[in-house]
Amino acid sequence: MINRQLHLVSRPPAEPTVDNFRLVEAALPALQDGQVLVRHHYMSLDPYMRGRMSEAKSYATPQPLNAVMQGGTVGVVEQSRHPAFAAGDSVVGMGGWQEWGVVDATQPGVLRKVDTRQVPLSAYLGAVGMPGVTAWYGLNKIIEPQAGETVFVSAASGAVGAVVGQLAKARGCRVVGVAGGPEKCRYVTEELGFDACLDHRAYADPATLGAALAQACPQGIDGNFENVGGIVLDAVLGQMNPFGRVAVCGLIAGYSGAPVAISNPRPILTMRLKLQGFIVSEHMDVWPQALKELGEGVAAGRIRIRESIAQGLEAAPEAFIGLLKGRNFGKQLVKLV
Amino acid sequence: MINRQLHLVSRPPAEPTVDNFRLVEAALPALQDGQVLVRHHYMSLDPYMRGRMSEAKSYATPQPLNAVMQGGTVGVVEQSRHPAFAAGDSVVGMGGWQEWGVVDATQPGVLRKVDTRQVPLSAYLGAVGMPGVTAWYGLNKIIEPQAGETVFVSAASGAVGAVVGQLAKARGCRVVGVAGGPEKCRYVTEELGFDACLDHRAYADPATLGAALAQACPQGIDGNFENVGGIVLDAVLGQMNPFGRVAVCGLIAGYSGAPVAISNPRPILTMRLKLQGFIVSEHMDVWPQALKELGEGVAAGRIRIRESIAQGLEAAPEAFIGLLKGRNFGKQLVKLV
Repeated sequence: MINRQLHLVSRPPAEPTVDNFRLVEAALPALQDGQVLVRHHYMSLDPYMRGRMSEAKSYATPQPLNAVMQGGTVGVVEQSRHPAFAAGDSVVGMGGWQEWGVVDATQPGVLRKVDTRQVPLSAYLGAVGMPGVTAWYGLNKIIEPQAGETVFVSAASGAVGAVVGQLAKARGCRVVGVAGGPEKCRYVTEELGFDACLDHRAYADPATLGAALAQACPQGIDGNFENVGGIVLDAVLGQMNPFGRVAVCGLIAGYSGAPVAISNPRPILTMRLKLQGFIVSEHMDVWPQALKELGEGVAAGRIRIRESIAQGLEAAPEAFIGLLKGRNFGKQLVKLV
Repeated sequence: MINRQLHLVSRPPAEPTVDNFRLVEAALPALQDGQVLVRHHYMSLDPYMRGRMSEAKSYATPQPLNAVMQGGTVGVVEQSRHPAFAAGDSVVGMGGWQEWGVVDATQPGVLRKVDTRQVPLSAYLGAVGMPGVTAWYGLNKIIEPQAGETVFVSAASGAVGAVVGQLAKARGCRVVGVAGGPEKCRYVTEELGFDACLDHRAYADPATLGAALAQACPQGIDGNFENVGGIVLDAVLGQMNPFGRVAVCGLIAGYSGAPVAISNPRPILTMRLKLQGFIVSEHMDVWPQALKELGEGVAAGRIRIRESIAQGLEAAPEAFIGLLKGRNFGKQLVKLV
């Protein structure tokens, strides 16, 4: 049987292009004892993948060249030679950019069965998966918001930002976001329940953005969940209250090209801020609790989700490039089945 | 009796000049019940004073115009109408830039008796005073270094940096500093016992400074005590190890003029760093413990101190301007008696 895959074949110096990837056909090997064959239904596209395409010093080893692009997947077990899995099981794993995965299920944690009766399969790549736990960890473990505080979220309509905001609202916070374009902003306030959302495209510089932010956050900002960096972060730092917390989850503004500076770090000192970077995969201890809360929230409709779905493996590179430019609306997925 | 004072009469738009200050003669009022008359022996000059000369949003209310410059002082009680103080007592307080202070000693904490048998009076403005506790707090409560880790200190020969480095050495860390000029660097390694000290004047840009830093810190940097900001901070961030801690105590590079950026904040994310600003006066609970340790360290010679002493009240503005330019060598004081 043929397995179609996408390989990374060159490292982008700045913005990735479709030429950095190559579609490859490989024969599926016969299953060995302990292995499970998974048909991937959805692949996850996430901003962190851009960092791993480079060789710069970072938290993870770089994505190897001429190998399948790594990434999260959900799918259904087609064959199993491991006692814990059976044909028909819905599973989540790190299957990569390919239509099929052969998984050594004897390694703990590489494959996890999921229940799709109340939570759609794709949500295990979003609000009930890595992005959701990312939101949960940064909010609960770094920002630790109190009721009545103001929490700000960049990339508010995205897979992570949408969950941050909904969790913060449930904790009694005022929640303000920023997103790209009026349609996303409307979604963030009307569907996700944020108190306000600014369209960053409507502001040319940190000063005008800062003025709009001051109006949207009349009590200042106590917690900032940072996904973007650049002028949004600059403007937010200028509105932070004393002892504010910044969870640094992503700096997508600088992912392709020159680093994006923090123009004025002075509020870190004058407002006694804490900025803390984190990687959710280093906090596996919180995953069970977080996934339980997130799954219950999605099942009950308290956490609303939205997805951008690209069709077919070939669409992945273009969809990934679009994700880095903010063309997605909600969690970016690639549907394979 | 005449009390000579220095008032702030205008706010500097960028670097302060002597014209921002005016020497004023005022009559000393007669002592009321509960008041103490203190003859100031030394005034403390500290970088934080620059921030308070501006009206920008910060942690403290601005220094008022046409009023005595606020600041720490040590002196000797000349007359007392408070039972806890007697003529001849050595005291530390916030007497400001003037030769005499009339203190309402009924307010708790405004005046503290100090023991000068083993610790010189002036040290209560430095290593056994606010700068020392600043070093102690940032190191012990934010950096929390483990033996064997590498701690970096900017402004290493200064009142705060010198104490940070000596405390970190005592905890079994490798300690590396940066200072301005070969004489200060020699002092930092030979007298204070740092493992290495870089002369920031010898490096034109963050890249060459970063290369020298990498050589001085072959195991990377686990804790950074930040006093300066600018290219030193940029270079240090590039050498931080995973889970590194940055205690943001000062950003003197940006105190007079345009804010100084953090050129590349990416390591905050990729190295999962924590940056935390702090103001030592908000942590009064640690002062007794810190002052005890610092006093014992100075008395025993384990913590060495060095002072730059300007003579006479009139010398204060020039000495303060010099402090902001790094012309001091060790704790900057003004000697009045």
